[in-house]
Amino acid sequence: MPKYLFESVAASIVFDQNKLLTLTAREAKNFGKLETATDTQVRSALSGLKDSSHYPRFRERNLQITRRLIHESVKPDSYVIQAANNIDDIDRAINMLSKRLREWYSLYFPEFSRTIESHVKFAELISKSRNELMKELGCTGTMGGDADSADLAAMRNLAGSIVAQNRLRESHEAYLDTVMGGLCPNLKALVGVLIGAKLIALAGSIEKLVKLPASTIQLLGAEKALFRHIKTGARCPRHGIIMQHPLISSAAQKEHGKRSRVLADKIAIAVKIDYYKGEFAGERMRRELEARFR
Amino acid sequence: MPKYLFESVAASIVFDQNKLLTLTAREAKNFGKLETATDTQVRSALSGLKDSSHYPRFRERNLQITRRLIHESVKPDSYVIQAANNIDDIDRAINMLSKRLREWYSLYFPEFSRTIESHVKFAELISKSRNELMKELGCTGTMGGDADSADLAAMRNLAGSIVAQNRLRESHEAYLDTVMGGLCPNLKALVGVLIGAKLIALAGSIEKLVKLPASTIQLLGAEKALFRHIKTGARCPRHGIIMQHPLISSAAQKEHGKRSRVLADKIAIAVKIDYYKGEFAGERMRRELEARFR
Repeated sequence: MPKYLFESVAASIVFDQNKLLTLTAREAKNFGKLETATDTQVRSALSGLKDSSHYPRFRERNLQITRRLIHESVKPDSYVIQAANNIDDIDRAINMLSKRLREWYSLYFPEFSRTIESHVKFAELISKSRNELMKELGCTGTMGGDADSADLAAMRNLAGSIVAQNRLRESHEAYLDTVMGGLCPNLKALVGVLIGAKLIALAGSIEKLVKLPASTIQLLGAEKALFRHIKTGARCPRHGIIMQHPLISSAAQKEHGKRSRVLADKIAIAVKIDYYKGEFAGERMRRELEARFR
Repeated sequence: MPKYLFESVAASIVFDQNKLLTLTAREAKNFGKLETATDTQVRSALSGLKDSSHYPRFRERNLQITRRLIHESVKPDSYVIQAANNIDDIDRAINMLSKRLREWYSLYFPEFSRTIESHVKFAELISKSRNELMKELGCTGTMGGDADSADLAAMRNLAGSIVAQNRLRESHEAYLDTVMGGLCPNLKALVGVLIGAKLIALAGSIEKLVKLPASTIQLLGAEKALFRHIKTGARCPRHGIIMQHPLISSAAQKEHGKRSRVLADKIAIAVKIDYYKGEFAGERMRRELEARFR
């Protein structure tokens, strides 16, 4: 029995152990993509499975092949997806901890919280003393309670952690910027690092994103609304994650649908240029879009 | 009209502006706790409200009193509650970020994650190189994918943030330890810093915790199960947060109910000693409990 055939059948079995018993020669051929093998060869390889003395080597080779496939399944976009999703996690953590910090610090200086909208800015500012902040704010007194230095240190430790997490977020963005510059320069130029990374994460990989039609790209990230539409007949969503793009979010409400459709079209093209290593055109596409929507 | 009366009525109004119109003299007396004022005095203060020329000063004084009350409402246990709740927040953030880190790092070294149970230890360890970790683990190969130094740096930044948040958690614990040592030494000695702080947080303040019967203390933190019991007749919960106490969590399942009841009794006593500044007995109570359950 030729070795490569042995391995190929093994590989196909790795993918679906349940099919082993019912596999016909033709099915095994399609399944394992053994285009060069003849039916007779495949049949003889399969008939080899009836001989249980083959099993130990079979199993070992299977494991080897599986390990290699797992190793090869990790692509640069796998890391991009993790980093993009992690940015969402970090945002969630920052929000949760900032809500706590504002509640906590408001015991001490309740007038301050609402004057600062940004969570991170708020966390940075409270490293200053209350007197200093009151002077900057121009308020003469506070109805906040007293706090000793240990109480304040606890709040400031939390604030420091929020600031540090924001730095982590920024380092992830810089990382994504570098990786995506090599991986999908057109997509990055067209929609920016964050939206691009999230599109890849939502599709599952660049390869999968390439295969999606523009209409699906338009709704990536709006799955909940889409299925509600399908199930209950509610209004169909007009955009998913791409709605965070400045060209859409800054437009008037009634323009959103049209702009999303056009942008999704361009994304579908950009990502195909990236995947098939075409010439860089993302910058030009973005400028065209901007001119069209001005 | 005497000034103190004026202020007292104002203070009572602060508490409930809606009652202003329907307030009788007796009600105002009870409401504002003006034990020393006669009915006539209160009535004359209230009748002053009919004269709208009083209103500006009334309003101003009201605001002053409210500010003072807000200032005074901040007690040391307010900070304890925030820190205790923040520890829960931090745990949630660490869990969320660690799940992401494990998924991310498993692309690179999938065999490693399940060998380390502690999230923080995992985050600390991955600062080492994969080869080093493989040597420690005694494994000869990995099916993980390749990663360049930028990919690894991104994961290690996240790991560093998890380690830093664990340090924040520890600093909060140390802070609670100090504050609760002065505030409620008996409670702290009996159940430890974390459970003690959470009991205060669940009750709302030490003052409120003092007023709770032992049976309520036993179920603090099990509100969901309790209301399910009341609503649907499901089994009554036997313990809330106190079940994290080693005397209960280490006991056999059938002992849990009994031990919770006894521990809750002791907590009710300890917290009363703390609040009314009695002599320190927490250590003795804990030793007695331990002896009884041995």
